[in-house]
Amino acid sequence: MDYNYEGPGENCGVFGVFGNRQASLLTYYGLYALQHRGQESVGIVVSDGSRLYDKRAMGLVSDVFQPGDFEQLPGSLACGHVRYSTTGASSLANVQPLVVHFSNSNFCLAHNGNLTNAAKVRRDLEQKGSIFQSSSDTEIVTHLLARNFRHGLEQAMINSLREIKGAYSFILMTNDTLVAARDRHGFRPLCLGKLDDAYILASETCALDLVDAVYVREIDPGEILFIDKNGMRSLKPFPPLEHRHCIFEFVYFARPDSNVFGHNVYMIRHQFGKVLAGENPRLRADFVMPFPDSGNYAAIGFSQESGIPLEMAMIRNHYVGRSFIQPTQDLRDFAVKIKLNPVSQLIKGKKIIVVDDSIVRGTTALNRVKGLRRAGAQEVHMLVASPPCVSPCYYGVDFARREQLIASAHTTEEIKNILELDSLNYLSIEGMLSCMAEKQRDFCLACFNSVYPVKCAD
Amino acid sequence: MDYNYEGPGENCGVFGVFGNRQASLLTYYGLYALQHRGQESVGIVVSDGSRLYDKRAMGLVSDVFQPGDFEQLPGSLACGHVRYSTTGASSLANVQPLVVHFSNSNFCLAHNGNLTNAAKVRRDLEQKGSIFQSSSDTEIVTHLLARNFRHGLEQAMINSLREIKGAYSFILMTNDTLVAARDRHGFRPLCLGKLDDAYILASETCALDLVDAVYVREIDPGEILFIDKNGMRSLKPFPPLEHRHCIFEFVYFARPDSNVFGHNVYMIRHQFGKVLAGENPRLRADFVMPFPDSGNYAAIGFSQESGIPLEMAMIRNHYVGRSFIQPTQDLRDFAVKIKLNPVSQLIKGKKIIVVDDSIVRGTTALNRVKGLRRAGAQEVHMLVASPPCVSPCYYGVDFARREQLIASAHTTEEIKNILELDSLNYLSIEGMLSCMAEKQRDFCLACFNSVYPVKCAD
Amino acid sequence: MDYNYEGPGENCGVFGVFGNRQASLLTYYGLYALQHRGQESVGIVVSDGSRLYDKRAMGLVSDVFQPGDFEQLPGSLACGHVRYSTTGASSLANVQPLVVHFSNSNFCLAHNGNLTNAAKVRRDLEQKGSIFQSSSDTEIVTHLLARNFRHGLEQAMINSLREIKGAYSFILMTNDTLVAARDRHGFRPLCLGKLDDAYILASETCALDLVDAVYVREIDPGEILFIDKNGMRSLKPFPPLEHRHCIFEFVYFARPDSNVFGHNVYMIRHQFGKVLAGENPRLRADFVMPFPDSGNYAAIGFSQESGIPLEMAMIRNHYVGRSFIQPTQDLRDFAVKIKLNPVSQLIKGKKIIVVDDSIVRGTTALNRVKGLRRAGAQEVHMLVASPPCVSPCYYGVDFARREQLIASAHTTEEIKNILELDSLNYLSIEGMLSCMAEKQRDFCLACFNSVYPVKCAD
Amino acid sequence: MDYNYEGPGENCGVFGVFGNRQASLLTYYGLYALQHRGQESVGIVVSDGSRLYDKRAMGLVSDVFQPGDFEQLPGSLACGHVRYSTTGASSLANVQPLVVHFSNSNFCLAHNGNLTNAAKVRRDLEQKGSIFQSSSDTEIVTHLLARNFRHGLEQAMINSLREIKGAYSFILMTNDTLVAARDRHGFRPLCLGKLDDAYILASETCALDLVDAVYVREIDPGEILFIDKNGMRSLKPFPPLEHRHCIFEFVYFARPDSNVFGHNVYMIRHQFGKVLAGENPRLRADFVMPFPDSGNYAAIGFSQESGIPLEMAMIRNHYVGRSFIQPTQDLRDFAVKIKLNPVSQLIKGKKIIVVDDSIVRGTTALNRVKGLRRAGAQEVHMLVASPPCVSPCYYGVDFARREQLIASAHTTEEIKNILELDSLNYLSIEGMLSCMAEKQRDFCLACFNSVYPVKCAD
Repeated sequence: MDYNYEGPGENCGVFGVFGNRQASLLTYYGLYALQHRGQESVGIVVSDGSRLYDKRAMGLVSDVFQPGDFEQLPGSLACGHVRYSTTGASSLANVQPLVVHFSNSNFCLAHNGNLTNAAKVRRDLEQKGSIFQSSSDTEIVTHLLARNFRHGLEQAMINSLREIKGAYSFILMTNDTLVAARDRHGFRPLCLGKLDDAYILASETCALDLVDAVYVREIDPGEILFIDKNGMRSLKPFPPLEHRHCIFEFVYFARPDSNVFGHNVYMIRHQFGKVLAGENPRLRADFVMPFPDSGNYAAIGFSQESGIPLEMAMIRNHYVGRSFIQPTQDLRDFAVKIKLNPVSQLIKGKKIIVVDDSIVRGTTALNRVKGLRRAGAQEVHMLVASPPCVSPCYYGVDFARREQLIASAHTTEEIKNILELDSLNYLSIEGMLSCMAEKQRDFCLACFNSVYPVKCAD
Repeated sequence: MDYNYEGPGENCGVFGVFGNRQASLLTYYGLYALQHRGQESVGIVVSDGSRLYDKRAMGLVSDVFQPGDFEQLPGSLACGHVRYSTTGASSLANVQPLVVHFSNSNFCLAHNGNLTNAAKVRRDLEQKGSIFQSSSDTEIVTHLLARNFRHGLEQAMINSLREIKGAYSFILMTNDTLVAARDRHGFRPLCLGKLDDAYILASETCALDLVDAVYVREIDPGEILFIDKNGMRSLKPFPPLEHRHCIFEFVYFARPDSNVFGHNVYMIRHQFGKVLAGENPRLRADFVMPFPDSGNYAAIGFSQESGIPLEMAMIRNHYVGRSFIQPTQDLRDFAVKIKLNPVSQLIKGKKIIVVDDSIVRGTTALNRVKGLRRAGAQEVHMLVASPPCVSPCYYGVDFARREQLIASAHTTEEIKNILELDSLNYLSIEGMLSCMAEKQRDFCLACFNSVYPVKCAD
Repeated sequence: MDYNYEGPGENCGVFGVFGNRQASLLTYYGLYALQHRGQESVGIVVSDGSRLYDKRAMGLVSDVFQPGDFEQLPGSLACGHVRYSTTGASSLANVQPLVVHFSNSNFCLAHNGNLTNAAKVRRDLEQKGSIFQSSSDTEIVTHLLARNFRHGLEQAMINSLREIKGAYSFILMTNDTLVAARDRHGFRPLCLGKLDDAYILASETCALDLVDAVYVREIDPGEILFIDKNGMRSLKPFPPLEHRHCIFEFVYFARPDSNVFGHNVYMIRHQFGKVLAGENPRLRADFVMPFPDSGNYAAIGFSQESGIPLEMAMIRNHYVGRSFIQPTQDLRDFAVKIKLNPVSQLIKGKKIIVVDDSIVRGTTALNRVKGLRRAGAQEVHMLVASPPCVSPCYYGVDFARREQLIASAHTTEEIKNILELDSLNYLSIEGMLSCMAEKQRDFCLACFNSVYPVKCAD
Repeated sequence: MDYNYEGPGENCGVFGVFGNRQASLLTYYGLYALQHRGQESVGIVVSDGSRLYDKRAMGLVSDVFQPGDFEQLPGSLACGHVRYSTTGASSLANVQPLVVHFSNSNFCLAHNGNLTNAAKVRRDLEQKGSIFQSSSDTEIVTHLLARNFRHGLEQAMINSLREIKGAYSFILMTNDTLVAARDRHGFRPLCLGKLDDAYILASETCALDLVDAVYVREIDPGEILFIDKNGMRSLKPFPPLEHRHCIFEFVYFARPDSNVFGHNVYMIRHQFGKVLAGENPRLRADFVMPFPDSGNYAAIGFSQESGIPLEMAMIRNHYVGRSFIQPTQDLRDFAVKIKLNPVSQLIKGKKIIVVDDSIVRGTTALNRVKGLRRAGAQEVHMLVASPPCVSPCYYGVDFARREQLIASAHTTEEIKNILELDSLNYLSIEGMLSCMAEKQRDFCLACFNSVYPVKCAD
């Protein structure tokens, strides 16, 4: 699976700073490290203690921000957000963090996740007169918060979160306070770090690493953490629920050098590969190769466990830009080759096992398999380091509608034929879970088993 | 007075189309013709009958829009906006037209003007739970409209406009209807045109000219005009008030080739110059010259009436860009000369009358007068084609705070000395009004006489 | 006539500095002031005494250079060039100043003009082994210079200039010397200024004005001026010839605030207008108007002499950009109106005299006249402040081929009909010359009278 | 070793097309595939049979070319070039292919390589009157060619190549002929492909792959190949010399999916890793890891041969842009981590073997080793998949001056200490050569053994 061609849909990254004079610059770096979680838009909002300043725009972190920007973004509190590319929709209004003003107050909110009762809450708010400039859940939450702000920040957070269901990792910032909040199931990651005297919040630990912050802990599911000049204050106002960490963060979203949900992503993917080997003991081949880079780590694990040698038989072009001119004449496999060129000398006449992290719609996989065939592969067997993706996600991973999920409408045998494979095997759910010490019910597996921890009320 | 150096503050331009398949492209042209009313940001929203599409961004019309954009902006209804450059403030949230969604409805709103009871209405709305993403009046009106939408579009317009006071020329667009509305005093211009079967709305007639539309009439003060597939429907739900057309539109804002408030701007400025001549019968000089281009038309009128020959003794550099690199060493008169270079051969040893449209802060005028002195002028007399600007505007012209208005704190004699002039004379209020058939009370003269037609309640 | 629509072809601007530590920044300003002489490309070359640094690129001065560039352009000698936009041709290789290296020497050369024996000299050089990366005359001269450099800079200049014929104003810069040279007829302007201890060279005095330099004198026709640490040294190695100043510099090219050939351009154009009035004593109208800005100054002169009032009845849009999106549907007069909108109220039913500086191909004039007709003009009489342009220029003004010159193939009566005018009158050659104290043979009038001072050998 | 931080210096890529109507677009793709060989500038020159058209500019292929460009680049012959980034020097003049005009002829030349007698040839040419606009060898060759063109294209090629020594792979294009030429030692690669009826020339086969061309053969060392409407014509006018293929193409330059000099690059690097394992039989560790991506393939080979498991323990950020804002405060390992973040969980307490392709200056390697230490590595052993780089290259790889080569001034033991390694071992020259069937003297190993096949005459 690959960023530009078949990403599994919308996700986001959030980052916050309390107590560093270069808060905006640190946030720039943090968002840079989280860029893989969202490439459509980026925003940084800062506070100098008395007012908020922001720069938000469509585009990549490194394209949007210029050196001079940071003088315009003063203060020691910051809150940032990167957003995944969605297609077609009008998008300026969706750029986060959202900044709102009311009754002499103002705050900004950055959100990673998806509410399941958004439509209902929105209708209720609209009944009470709220209007919306975007289609985002985030704007709904800003309305709830604003309606409760007269009770104080703490109570506003509690009252608002009581109303909403689903998946969320929030960073909220007022003039003087940074707040982190995570839903009680803990669908999406959010962690706390420390950089000298400053506190850092980030979706993944790779962002802490880049700014030299020390990892402290995850924000707990159901926790609301307030950080201000008096230090940290943690609330858990709601009865705890079972954890439902999104297992797809391990499969695809998170960077392999990050820790999420208490596990290192690299290690987990590596273990997925080992289990794949155990589940397919009779599968032999001349070599195993990943679709880079998403399949790299499971392929390594598989190779180590199976003893089948690893090769990197498709080579990435590191200069693939966003503005590539499409060919008008017919060039075979162009869309694949522009990114990944197969090494024919390695492939010709060989029996190959390909490992990828997942198959969502199947289009990219098919093109790549065809590329391997054209390069002379004798047999192409595919191993997927996750179970068949059969159901849509309502908790923040907007990977296509159900009818676009190839595994929703087709058996594994059928998919094998569609993708022109010699064999196709997925990691079993049990195998996947065996890689973590937690019990099955600590994870959300809805996309794999259609069991939705939170009903999608609408 | 000049665009880049000392513009008298915020104003805006609006444009709308009903019933042309190239609505977005026509709006692009219309906004291009209205670019002088606002250079900070631009937005176009279109409807194809079932949903709204938009592109909004910071920048000039010709920089923001690219040829491919118009395929992404389909439909035969369009609403556009250009906004004046304000400094410092965060601005993404202020880009218009504002698009709002609620209760299965959506609309967009473009606004030229300023509400005088904005703070109060906003407080009331906040009491009822509204929150805001910007500091603009426009967002307030969208909240009023949304709260009334369940009563139908007509009633929503009526109920909302009943709540607000001040100056406004609105274009509102739903999926299938285009609405124009103008406050009962008629502060800001708004006119209706026709292009084949399509209706066009525009702040000034110069925008009609560019798209080949025929001028039909002004939207009346207090009128709400609905345009949909059944044609036009005009309402005047409120008791009429005296007109209070903003006289500064004639002085500076509107393009000379436009008609506003039933008058051609060029003709009015021309007449201002003639009256200036009548009011200063004894003032003689070798020649009269404008500060180009704002003073051109009054200077022509003055020259014709006084018989004093006209010269264009300061030459514009047409290539002045926005990103000019400032000198680090001291270059005399640089800020003036980069835009306007005096023709020394013409000026040396001469007694000169300079005509400009207005003096707001005086900084630019001083620099230019110094430039004339340095070029060898023996005497520099200045005539201003409007009365002294003594009071701030609360109806959409955000020209500086009162303390920045040089005429607010200084007598004409003092200003003459500050600007190092040999004499300084302003057009009298009576002289100004004598140029129009209307009575004094048809115009808002607040900036000149401190009489505010609508109290600034707050 | 107007820059973007029908400019009369290639011309250039040159600028040089000796002895100012901010030489590159001064050159940036100087080229900015000379931008009207060339908009296709710009280049600045500097010397810090031991080597040359350069930045050259396609585009406008203010777009090409960024603040950081000037640290990369150190030294107190500089040489800059702006080049007019030509169409179609490959152009990177034509960006000036040309920098050449050979035999441990290097220099750069900036050129305004056109050689008449270029083809022959080039053939000779090619016979001797020279090769060329561009089609420019300038590269030819660099070859001549290089072949003579072993004789020393002075002799190299003398030997090289002896070989070439035609029009040239050169600025040459070595590591430590700045050289100005002008052909013996003095076709193109070039002047010397002083800024404190530094010497400045510029095509027009408006560039001296902007950098606060004091005008010293013109470089004489046939003069070679060397400026180095020992001061200035002037040579006139060739027998003098009659002057042949390009009269079209007065007609169109030079900025009105400049002095060229010892005359102020504004004053000359003004006088052209007065003479036009004298030559057309019976022509009466409601008013006279220029096509702005090229016709402004003659129109003023005409109005003063004839007593016919002046109006500015077509209004410029100051925001016309280079990337305007063309309409796909038919919008009447669009190409005109996007730049100049007629003021109908002024024009309707009126008898109008229009003044422009020249008519080259006639296309733009026709469109504008049509615009005036459509705005309701009853009669449109045109006065051209120069004689009919009947012959091509071989001395640096590349205005179209002979067959594109409307006056080459048509009588004035025919042109009047083609342009749909009620009458058309040109300034006579005698009238034109009467504006200057010099004799006719001090000027090159080839484009008007087909008398070529230097044969175009080839 | 890595592109942005410590690339081993200048190299280039060339691409040519004869006989395809979309020659310019194919060249765009070809250069895209060769972008790793040069990122500073790019140029495409085409011929429609009667003249040359070109677009050349600083920047990446995908940034420089826009869709509309290809209409301006018509014709079925094309020649393209990408150039490596050099620092500091003025560079516009160095953009290739160079286009030259003379004596009614014109051609363009694209060059990959470096001449060893450039200074002498240039002096000779300068004696005969040649002048230069750049410091490039390529311009020298255009002079030689031009001086010989009167003898016809074939003889001009022969006479010119007779004069020059060193390394070159040329593509020359006239109006109707495409020519490939390679020096007699065959230092740099150049291959021929076929796409339907068209002929393709390319530095590496990966460029053939992308445009669907079939690999035909290498251009032979010493061969001059002419392609015109009559087909191909091959000359070998000079006595053959021993081959001296640049072994660094295998080590670093070429893409792993390319074949150069008859070998697949991936396979060779893989084998380098295996031999490294054989040469270090006692080196044990918890795992082996590459510095990605340059060390990937040798690391895989090493792992397969040694049985030591492979891990990818440093993770690339795929969004590293060229305009990243540098931190003003001290962030440890920032320059490393922004590109590569170590996976601490994998590294902590482990004994690690790191594989990279080469060490040039050592700076990057040191930073990365420090990063591994900071991530908790207990032991870091480094294996370099090439011998110590002790001598500069004079044949086209401009990797630093001798004094910048860490292995030039230091023993392996010293380098081990400088890089803070537990052990450091290089691949032996013998081991390296054992990977190819050819004899040692088929390769140029000058950077490793200081034996220069062609004297650097100067």
